Amino acid sequence: MSCKVILAQSIAASYRDELKDTIKTRNICPKLVGFLANEDPAAAKYAEWTAKTCAETGIEFELRKCSRNELEDKIVEANQDVDVHGIMVYYPVFGDRQDQYLQNVVDVGKDVEGLHHKYVYNMYHNVRFLDEAKTKKCIIPCTPLGLVKVMEYIGIYNSILPYGNRLHGRVVTIINRSEIVGRPLAALLANDGAKVYSVDINGIQEFHRGVGLQLKKHEVCETTLKVEDVLPLSDVVITGVPSPAYKVPSHLIRDGATCINFSTFKNFDGEEIKKKAAIYVPAVGKVTVAMLERNLIRLYDYQNQDRAAKATSTA
Amino acid sequence: MSCKVILAQSIAASYRDELKDTIKTRNICPKLVGFLANEDPAAAKYAEWTAKTCAETGIEFELRKCSRNELEDKIVEANQDVDVHGIMVYYPVFGDRQDQYLQNVVDVGKDVEGLHHKYVYNMYHNVRFLDEAKTKKCIIPCTPLGLVKVMEYIGIYNSILPYGNRLHGRVVTIINRSEIVGRPLAALLANDGAKVYSVDINGIQEFHRGVGLQLKKHEVCETTLKVEDVLPLSDVVITGVPSPAYKVPSHLIRDGATCINFSTFKNFDGEEIKKKAAIYVPAVGKVTVAMLERNLIRLYDYQNQDRAAKATSTA
Repeated sequence: MSCKVILAQSIAASYRDELKDTIKTRNICPKLVGFLANEDPAAAKYAEWTAKTCAETGIEFELRKCSRNELEDKIVEANQDVDVHGIMVYYPVFGDRQDQYLQNVVDVGKDVEGLHHKYVYNMYHNVRFLDEAKTKKCIIPCTPLGLVKVMEYIGIYNSILPYGNRLHGRVVTIINRSEIVGRPLAALLANDGAKVYSVDINGIQEFHRGVGLQLKKHEVCETTLKVEDVLPLSDVVITGVPSPAYKVPSHLIRDGATCINFSTFKNFDGEEIKKKAAIYVPAVGKVTVAMLERNLIRLYDYQNQDRAAKATSTA
Repeated sequence: MSCKVILAQSIAASYRDELKDTIKTRNICPKLVGFLANEDPAAAKYAEWTAKTCAETGIEFELRKCSRNELEDKIVEANQDVDVHGIMVYYPVFGDRQDQYLQNVVDVGKDVEGLHHKYVYNMYHNVRFLDEAKTKKCIIPCTPLGLVKVMEYIGIYNSILPYGNRLHGRVVTIINRSEIVGRPLAALLANDGAKVYSVDINGIQEFHRGVGLQLKKHEVCETTLKVEDVLPLSDVVITGVPSPAYKVPSHLIRDGATCINFSTFKNFDGEEIKKKAAIYVPAVGKVTVAMLERNLIRLYDYQNQDRAAKATSTA
């Protein structure tokens, strides 16, 4: 079979090496604090995994456990602590809108997950820098960012095209429209020039920047299309359906398509998909964690820049 | 407009630099002989251009003019001359099948244009090496090879895929099915994994290696499709229609397509195509000449290897 199967590990490796190298060469020790305020064994597992990965990279990771009612105060405390460079929370905490409130309690300058409203807003509006001088890139949510990096690595982004337009001509279907991954990912890819079909149980939306990318940021249109209409048109199919029962119908996949799964369940039938796809990425978790670390280094540098600027202005 | 226009010059530059560097570093002086046996002003122009380019690269170029009836003997003479490393003929000479006969008179070891039956046969059969040990790559006809290099440069070939499969998933329309460019190009691209629609006035043929690239070499199927069916499906549209009157209907081109013209006439309406295409390559001539030079260096090395092998075996 001619399908190339690419593991997240090999994609993450180059980022991990670069991170290790940066930390070692610059002799820095960025600190990440993770808050665990639930009894979810999956969250505890994820926390363990973050700790292990950070240790390997040279990042100081501290897990702080507390009750969900203490969490807000604990976050505020970490916000004010100059020795803490990055903060993350293992969600769900309350499992409702209060979690979204907590995302905005995390200081925007320490939000490694990129879930603060400022970052989310900028991402949807295709605003790529925090400052007018364009020295500080916005933080992008880890999983969508990880998926972008996967797509860069496997050659879906075309680097001959200008930055910001490198998916021009690509047609992508994303099966998942969650606020954490699916919808931001659709926006990111459309902002980079792709035509995106965003699929959820309520129907299919199209995200795009118009013919010839005439729009500066994407627009979203409702469609009456069905999965069986959009899959045969798609160069790239990305899935994140949180169910062991769900499988993408392989016969609808275009010959030579690229198939990427970010669900913890296998949304593609591995054997069937390898007969048709050109590239298959069965999981992306390790790339997501590398992006978390990458965001941390970036925020660490911004914090130092800000301190240096403040020192100069008061001198 | 977001269309990226890419000039052959910038694609050729890296090959030209590499060639110059090779010739200088190794202190070699490969010699190319061109035969001009017609009164075609376009051929004379092409000969002038070859001379100029070779001089810049550090290749010795000698133009030999003769009558068409003397040509065969002149070629045989150059075949036997160890100081001549490459031979090319400015076609048309007789303008009929006798030209194809002359292509096979040129020694296979000196055929910089890759028009000898051995090379053409190997190309159609996806045989990539001349020897079993796979040390000598086959010579590929200059213009189709130039188009492959253009497609590599502009990111149509995906280097994450294994060599030989790097166009898997690409759909290409080629408007031209000449024996010199269109048909060999369709075969090359299909052998590299693309699905190719090959268009000429008699209809459209599909060249492909099947679902999942299950075939080792491409197969060709007749279709009843029309240009208006295949253009909207195509990632890449390549044209070579030798007429100033012909224009590809822009409205049929897929948004974000890559458009490449190898005709000396502009087969795309430049203004219209830039509103839709992601990448537009208006001409490829300079890349073709760079490939001619590259083939020469390759043949020069093969000749030396052969001489060295012969010396060893008789020693």
